[in-house]
Amino acid sequence: MKHRGSKYSQAGVDIDLADSAKARLAEIVRSTFTENVVGDFGGFGAAFALKDMGADSILVSSADGVGTKLKVAFMTGRHDTVGHDLVNHLVNDILCMGARPLFFLDYIGLGEMNDAVVSSIVRGVADGCRDNNCALLGGETAQMPGFYAPGEYDLAGFIVGMAQKKSLPEKKSIKPGDVIIGFSSSGLHTNGYSLARKAFFEIGGMLPDQIIPETGISVTDELLTVHRSYLKTVLPYIEKGLFRAVAHITGGGFEGNISRILPPNADAAIDTRLWRPPGIFRAIRRLADVTAEEMYRVFNMGIGMVAVVGAADVPFLRKGMRAPDCEVVPVGAIVRGKGKVFLKF
Amino acid sequence: MKHRGSKYSQAGVDIDLADSAKARLAEIVRSTFTENVVGDFGGFGAAFALKDMGADSILVSSADGVGTKLKVAFMTGRHDTVGHDLVNHLVNDILCMGARPLFFLDYIGLGEMNDAVVSSIVRGVADGCRDNNCALLGGETAQMPGFYAPGEYDLAGFIVGMAQKKSLPEKKSIKPGDVIIGFSSSGLHTNGYSLARKAFFEIGGMLPDQIIPETGISVTDELLTVHRSYLKTVLPYIEKGLFRAVAHITGGGFEGNISRILPPNADAAIDTRLWRPPGIFRAIRRLADVTAEEMYRVFNMGIGMVAVVGAADVPFLRKGMRAPDCEVVPVGAIVRGKGKVFLKF
Repeated sequence: MKHRGSKYSQAGVDIDLADSAKARLAEIVRSTFTENVVGDFGGFGAAFALKDMGADSILVSSADGVGTKLKVAFMTGRHDTVGHDLVNHLVNDILCMGARPLFFLDYIGLGEMNDAVVSSIVRGVADGCRDNNCALLGGETAQMPGFYAPGEYDLAGFIVGMAQKKSLPEKKSIKPGDVIIGFSSSGLHTNGYSLARKAFFEIGGMLPDQIIPETGISVTDELLTVHRSYLKTVLPYIEKGLFRAVAHITGGGFEGNISRILPPNADAAIDTRLWRPPGIFRAIRRLADVTAEEMYRVFNMGIGMVAVVGAADVPFLRKGMRAPDCEVVPVGAIVRGKGKVFLKF
Repeated sequence: MKHRGSKYSQAGVDIDLADSAKARLAEIVRSTFTENVVGDFGGFGAAFALKDMGADSILVSSADGVGTKLKVAFMTGRHDTVGHDLVNHLVNDILCMGARPLFFLDYIGLGEMNDAVVSSIVRGVADGCRDNNCALLGGETAQMPGFYAPGEYDLAGFIVGMAQKKSLPEKKSIKPGDVIIGFSSSGLHTNGYSLARKAFFEIGGMLPDQIIPETGISVTDELLTVHRSYLKTVLPYIEKGLFRAVAHITGGGFEGNISRILPPNADAAIDTRLWRPPGIFRAIRRLADVTAEEMYRVFNMGIGMVAVVGAADVPFLRKGMRAPDCEVVPVGAIVRGKGKVFLKF
């Protein structure tokens, strides 16, 4: 953590409070250090040695925020999961490029320093980092008086991972006849929260701890379920060359994300009848009364990641990849086309 | 730019507007691409090849925001410089670790998509990247309805650079008798803006385009002067091993930053009488009536970076490093002590 909160005491910014938070954070952050981390907390930059970098290795990086899922953290006072969401989201993004995580940095912008909240947020980030064998190499907590409402903040993250050039997805390897398999999500992940909150709290008038009939779980618990990391499930198959391309189903849904991996001469035909969306999505649709098209454009609908595979490999993959917490199902196929995604309902 | 604005149209988020911004951004972003960038815009992660990575090379990274300097951009509608500030700030941070920049990613959080503003911000980021030979590898523009006031945003950045292990600063190389030399700043850089705005606009009741008597320049132009990058001036001397340590004078001022490079058995004695603070700092002090101690804790006072050098090298350095836009002056010395920074007034 470069200089978390090392700002000044004039004009609404408190430096001493920030220093005590920094000390507490050091311990959390060090719990994520891998053997590649050089030196310790508190320098102007954080150093990382690339011990197993080969001639074919490349770095893959990505930046993102948590989005309006944060509003659920504000509403419920539970700040220790959104950081985990952010890490898993970014791990999945670079996983689509065949990369495994190396290190992570976070940025927290808030109006007024709050040690307990910042510690909770960073604890969540560190949980995510440890789970994905990724060092939390640095971060910044910026006190921005007048930018954020009291008790609110924004949280952004940056990840750097390593891939082998030969594992980078190649669009031209995708051919008609290939199968698109889907990996089940743990819930909304980090997308669609503006609409989900509107559905449950505004239209539905529900309270945070009220049970959602379709799921038997409270609104809060459903909405704060941590975004699943597909690293351990998916990376070994990418490295074996069994996946021609992988897409993370985030903002923009099936169309917005699968279109990014298609070559210009192929379409993706997604058959939404091949799986049943989990209760949380059915509840949102019931409450918000949006079209099916819109649901699949906003939400992951139970499928957080898809991979394009050769048809011959599907039975092997479905058997090998079945895990109690992540189902693998065929969700569509590659057909001749123009780089578009079509959904059948 | 991974998926800038690829959000949805429900609940206050407009996806089509975001897509047009994305197209316009692509051109700006590509203007920063170095030969190490692999592939193009639009993937789930951005790939970067480390072509000249040796066995002694390490990565150095840092994250930061622009802070309340953004309020001056909001107030004046000039959004094309704060990105440049952010890049230069982070370039200077990793420069303290002996690193030259490789790539950069940005995060913009805003309430409502505004193509023109986002393009301006990213143009500033790209300007900074080109000036520092750094690829703008990715970024995220997050529409967060209800998080930011209309027309406001937060901007964070993340940099990765490369250093040689032998160029990493070594605290134990710093010895009593060493000289601390300072490099002139271009203005406030990115610190002290809450206090500066209070001084000019609240206490002084000045208008943005009013001239500051001490400088002959308008408040806006002074406050939006771009944070200086010391990369080209300072890196060659770090690589030649002439600098024992380098500190970037940011939030926390002289004490907060120089203390980070000191070994436990040496103090830094800064003699503030060795240089005259530029007019902007004198104007703030006149208006806000704060103590000298506070001024040097909040602001860079005209010195944006310091380096610890052997006394014998000072004449050579001062001669070799003189440049029309960056003065080099001795600002203090290393003395026996306990890792503390003392200022003489």
